[in-house]
Amino acid sequence: MSLYALIMAGGVGSRLWPRSRARTPKQFLALVSERTMVQETQQRLQPLVTPQRTLIATGQDFVSLVAEQLPDVPRGNVFGEPAGRGTAAAAGLAALRLLREDPEAVMAVLPADHLIQRPEVFRDLLAAGTEVARRGWLVTLGIEPTYPETGYGYIERGDLLGQVRGFDAYRVARFAEKPDLPTAERFLELGTHSWNSGMFIWTAGRLVEELSRHQPDLYAGLLEIDAALAADPAADVAERWCRLPDVTIDYGIMERAERIAVLPAAIGWSDVGSWAAVYDVAAQDRAGNAVFGRHVSPDTTGTLIVSRRLVATMGLEDMIVVDTDDVLLICPRSRAQDVKQLVALVQEHDREPAPPPGGQTEDAAAGESG
Amino acid sequence: MSLYALIMAGGVGSRLWPRSRARTPKQFLALVSERTMVQETQQRLQPLVTPQRTLIATGQDFVSLVAEQLPDVPRGNVFGEPAGRGTAAAAGLAALRLLREDPEAVMAVLPADHLIQRPEVFRDLLAAGTEVARRGWLVTLGIEPTYPETGYGYIERGDLLGQVRGFDAYRVARFAEKPDLPTAERFLELGTHSWNSGMFIWTAGRLVEELSRHQPDLYAGLLEIDAALAADPAADVAERWCRLPDVTIDYGIMERAERIAVLPAAIGWSDVGSWAAVYDVAAQDRAGNAVFGRHVSPDTTGTLIVSRRLVATMGLEDMIVVDTDDVLLICPRSRAQDVKQLVALVQEHDREPAPPPGGQTEDAAAGESG
Repeated sequence: MSLYALIMAGGVGSRLWPRSRARTPKQFLALVSERTMVQETQQRLQPLVTPQRTLIATGQDFVSLVAEQLPDVPRGNVFGEPAGRGTAAAAGLAALRLLREDPEAVMAVLPADHLIQRPEVFRDLLAAGTEVARRGWLVTLGIEPTYPETGYGYIERGDLLGQVRGFDAYRVARFAEKPDLPTAERFLELGTHSWNSGMFIWTAGRLVEELSRHQPDLYAGLLEIDAALAADPAADVAERWCRLPDVTIDYGIMERAERIAVLPAAIGWSDVGSWAAVYDVAAQDRAGNAVFGRHVSPDTTGTLIVSRRLVATMGLEDMIVVDTDDVLLICPRSRAQDVKQLVALVQEHDREPAPPPGGQTEDAAAGESG
Repeated sequence: MSLYALIMAGGVGSRLWPRSRARTPKQFLALVSERTMVQETQQRLQPLVTPQRTLIATGQDFVSLVAEQLPDVPRGNVFGEPAGRGTAAAAGLAALRLLREDPEAVMAVLPADHLIQRPEVFRDLLAAGTEVARRGWLVTLGIEPTYPETGYGYIERGDLLGQVRGFDAYRVARFAEKPDLPTAERFLELGTHSWNSGMFIWTAGRLVEELSRHQPDLYAGLLEIDAALAADPAADVAERWCRLPDVTIDYGIMERAERIAVLPAAIGWSDVGSWAAVYDVAAQDRAGNAVFGRHVSPDTTGTLIVSRRLVATMGLEDMIVVDTDDVLLICPRSRAQDVKQLVALVQEHDREPAPPPGGQTEDAAAGESG
């Protein structure tokens, strides 16, 4: 079964700041295990998808980081996007290349920065999804919602298509963009909606077919770029890439395409989209603290600690403490979603000339002598 | 006016942990200004007491730190105590030495780790105290209490002796050791009690007189040590020093001596005895935060930040955040007094083998790749 994978490693999220930074986005960090998230993503495909059949799409600044973290993946399988152009362009380019090499290719599109706690079930689902994709369906993996999240898109299940390798497969009735809270609550009550995980399985041919139909400009641009890369894998395609329309797979393809299926996926999934999510998926001690590092406290509870130094606390409840060489973040766990805005505030602060803090010079005030 | 000073720099307090450490106790740190506390203590004596007339008592491990921080004070004026032996021994030894060099010597005994925000008034008080001491009184500086502190000793004022250089001088009715809260509240209501600041002024002769009367063993031991040091300033007196009785000036001398005066001292005094005290004496911004370093927050209030890195917070209220190269402390300001117990907990923790935190190895969990 020649399943290929395209790992989407182009994200630049800021809600895991200060660990996640412009130079080391989340997918390149070891957040909840010893391996980085992109390493976990590639690793959990084994033995279903070999490194040779794994493609990576990332920003061109991260190509060497990918090579370092995924040494088994051939260098020619890593495409460094000259600029962010939405997920449809990356998926389309990978599909065109695979079509050249293997007209029967089935490809799974997988975000590089998600956690999946049941990798065996995940691989079984990929195998099932591959069968469904071979029958001409665009397959999505849908996550059972556990609360009315407003930050994800939703997939409404339609008719049951049947069982494949023990998994139910449904026709997709419709895709719903990020809902407001009442709508999300209704989706949860109805029980007919899954979270859109951004994981897809399809034949390269079916994707190219839908792309040519619904995104003709993007398709035309990608054809040119693929032809240039086919002639010379080192060709400079930056200018052509930057002229591509910027559309996502969800909006540009899935919401318009035909024959879309969803496989409900009970795989212990988390997008690890905030420090609160890191807390939720981490091992917690008896006081409900999740500690990456060393923590001493007589009474702190429900707190996430991520630090290379010893952290000593008293009286903290449900807090987030994340420490890096140059930045320290402290906030309530309930404010984890606001870290993004805090980063904007920090960037604003950095552009202003620093006032003398506390009436003294920084070095002197913070300095120890001797 | 030949006033001498003895700066007591032997403290090893742990309530300002993690800044204050065994190797760099509080008096050697720059906590609230650009200078370290012992530097401030020596500096604020200028021009009243020259560096040549300034003696320092410290632990023998800190002699080189004193030499580094106070380069103007002659090396021979620094006594490194082979072991902690209470304040009476250090004061008595200094008095014996001064008597040899200047039989009329008046000496001020001054803790190295207090903040005095009105140094001009302080120097005027020292001059006034010197006059009173010349008349044969043991003089203490009393601080007007502003709240019922239970961590200080108190001095009860007796009869007004008169005015000296514009300052009232009272006979001391009695010394009271650290009171319980109801007693401290009564002292505050009565208005007749001052905090015992640990600052004293007396002639070397009067101190030696009281010492010989009330602490004959200590006196005898100190005579031997002084004789050895007079013969050879580099003499090894460690063994004799360690046999000295361990008594404080307050308990060993002041509570027993005669002719004790107190000068109420409105000098902007703080013993900077905890992080809450550092917050109180520091400059605060509009949100009531005291920041030594760089702090960005949309809404944090009443919080002390001491850090060399950028500290970004949301939603903190009345907290303490103190950051060093190897330790991070976070607790409510109201728990500042408990830092001492937290340090004990950390020491206990350090003696135990570290369990794998959060189920992972420390480096991997906290590590960033690339």
